[in-house]
Amino acid sequence: MRGTNRQLRLARRPDGMVDEHTFELAEEPLRGLADGEFLVRVAYLSIDPTNRVWIRAEPSYLPPVGIGEVMRGGGAGAVVESRNDAYPVGTGVLGLLGWQEYAICGRDVTANAVPPGVPLQHMMSVYGATGVTAYFGMLDVADPKEGETVVVSGAAGATGSVAGQIAKIRGGRVIGIAGTDEKCRWLTDELGFDAAINYKTDDIGVRLDQLCPDGVDVFFDNVGGATLDTLLRHLALGARIALCGAISTYNAAETPPPIHWYVNLVVQRARMQGFLVLDYLDRFPEAVRALVQWVSEGRIQWRDHVVEGLEQAPRALNMLFRGENTGKLMVRVGPDPSA
Amino acid sequence: MRGTNRQLRLARRPDGMVDEHTFELAEEPLRGLADGEFLVRVAYLSIDPTNRVWIRAEPSYLPPVGIGEVMRGGGAGAVVESRNDAYPVGTGVLGLLGWQEYAICGRDVTANAVPPGVPLQHMMSVYGATGVTAYFGMLDVADPKEGETVVVSGAAGATGSVAGQIAKIRGGRVIGIAGTDEKCRWLTDELGFDAAINYKTDDIGVRLDQLCPDGVDVFFDNVGGATLDTLLRHLALGARIALCGAISTYNAAETPPPIHWYVNLVVQRARMQGFLVLDYLDRFPEAVRALVQWVSEGRIQWRDHVVEGLEQAPRALNMLFRGENTGKLMVRVGPDPSA
Repeated sequence: MRGTNRQLRLARRPDGMVDEHTFELAEEPLRGLADGEFLVRVAYLSIDPTNRVWIRAEPSYLPPVGIGEVMRGGGAGAVVESRNDAYPVGTGVLGLLGWQEYAICGRDVTANAVPPGVPLQHMMSVYGATGVTAYFGMLDVADPKEGETVVVSGAAGATGSVAGQIAKIRGGRVIGIAGTDEKCRWLTDELGFDAAINYKTDDIGVRLDQLCPDGVDVFFDNVGGATLDTLLRHLALGARIALCGAISTYNAAETPPPIHWYVNLVVQRARMQGFLVLDYLDRFPEAVRALVQWVSEGRIQWRDHVVEGLEQAPRALNMLFRGENTGKLMVRVGPDPSA
Repeated sequence: MRGTNRQLRLARRPDGMVDEHTFELAEEPLRGLADGEFLVRVAYLSIDPTNRVWIRAEPSYLPPVGIGEVMRGGGAGAVVESRNDAYPVGTGVLGLLGWQEYAICGRDVTANAVPPGVPLQHMMSVYGATGVTAYFGMLDVADPKEGETVVVSGAAGATGSVAGQIAKIRGGRVIGIAGTDEKCRWLTDELGFDAAINYKTDDIGVRLDQLCPDGVDVFFDNVGGATLDTLLRHLALGARIALCGAISTYNAAETPPPIHWYVNLVVQRARMQGFLVLDYLDRFPEAVRALVQWVSEGRIQWRDHVVEGLEQAPRALNMLFRGENTGKLMVRVGPDPSA
């Protein structure tokens, strides 16, 4: 039964985008399991902006991945060998499995069972960290009221698209910012957004003047930098900014791009609040229940973007920063027994 | 009884600091009172950073002062003539009386009676907008808990010094940032701050590394710009930033100075919130009651800095931005019947 495990290990910290020198593909024999451990064959790896954060030298909300260590990443797979009765062979699991074909879980690595009947792939997207992030960020942090104007940046992304749809369910007027006309059409024609702004061809400030003459009540921000700064100039009284991420800053070698108009937080008595889905672990079931309900009612739609093969993970990460993905980006590493 | 009124009117919007061309001293005859009006002889004008905001061209939380209009300013005085039974001659009042010797209140200008027995001068400082701002900003917005580390910028200022003392009353460990060694000694030796940083001679970041190795839980910010950016790099998990003002930005002709490290709001799940004391008008009595109590117990100290003469108001405003005042800056315009 013991075979080899292929892994992507961090070889060098990148300056900007990751490249062919950032990771090295290594093979090592699989060791035997200790009591309580179980072996997971990884089916999918979730590719997220936060992967780029984890390979910066600076500590973040988790310690940086060390040089020579397996790249950290969320994934889903199935148990193929077990010395843990709670995780018999065949169990679908979710966890920080790492960029590798097999993960030994149960002691050093925590993995949680996927609810029966839910496809592994959906646990990487709508019911995964991105969907749950959208849920808590929009409802707990931003908390839009009926009729309020809500703007979402990175709106065609995995988190932004769900966040915007949740704001619609709440009765908000929702405007998405995305990077292609095709993405903008998807937002308005299929997801029910009230308007969309193509930041590559439109001036966001001018469009916000037209679309939100009374200002923006809620901004769900995935981007940071100049986009955030423009929104700061369009806040309504009592506005809430939920800072979900700042993708525009993650590849910055040194100092992130600036914002200037934070002083408008005073003028508009507004709040800018960062959050991480990790802080909501104990409330995940609440979010997944709500998302399952909304999906079953056809009120939440999403797209998955699956890239094939472990060795494509670094390229997939760059696709994310170039906006080349359409929907939740993931890498298929091995077979999906739930498909 | 009808005499003349001397006024400072806005003549030209300044680029940076105000200068001799910004205001013009004008005289006009006092008009008669209409029913419901009362005439106030101004005793003190409060000089605050917000005065500078009000003469920018851009709308803020109040419309800009128009060219040719009397400069807007908070003040205190006594009623000297009245056609309003609620405000008989001799009543001490407080309001946006403007940079002038006499204000006609009761219709166009609202003025509120000062509690009997409280000196007019104290209504410009510890019981005035600055003290009340400190109260709500620290307790409502920042809400420090026992043992938390609290940093205050502009800590020797009228608002910052009271804010820091309130944080001490709440059981916080309080560090003040100020611009002279004398101010720093006042904070630590007389007001009971735990430490002080002279931003002109010390590197704030280095000092925060030494003084707050576990990060800053609460930052009460009067300054903005580079000071705010440094604090963003020293936040503890769950930190709260109360944005009271951004004095470093008010003289900026165009774009305010940048901050870069807002992304740490995500990493530390922190919140940055602007507030204005105007939103707490209905709760002023609560704040003044608490401040009166603390002052009577010797737990809050403050200094007033009185500049003599209406025509000195523009110079006094610049003193504020140069950090030349020690304590709450005000201009004495006329006699103080409560002194």
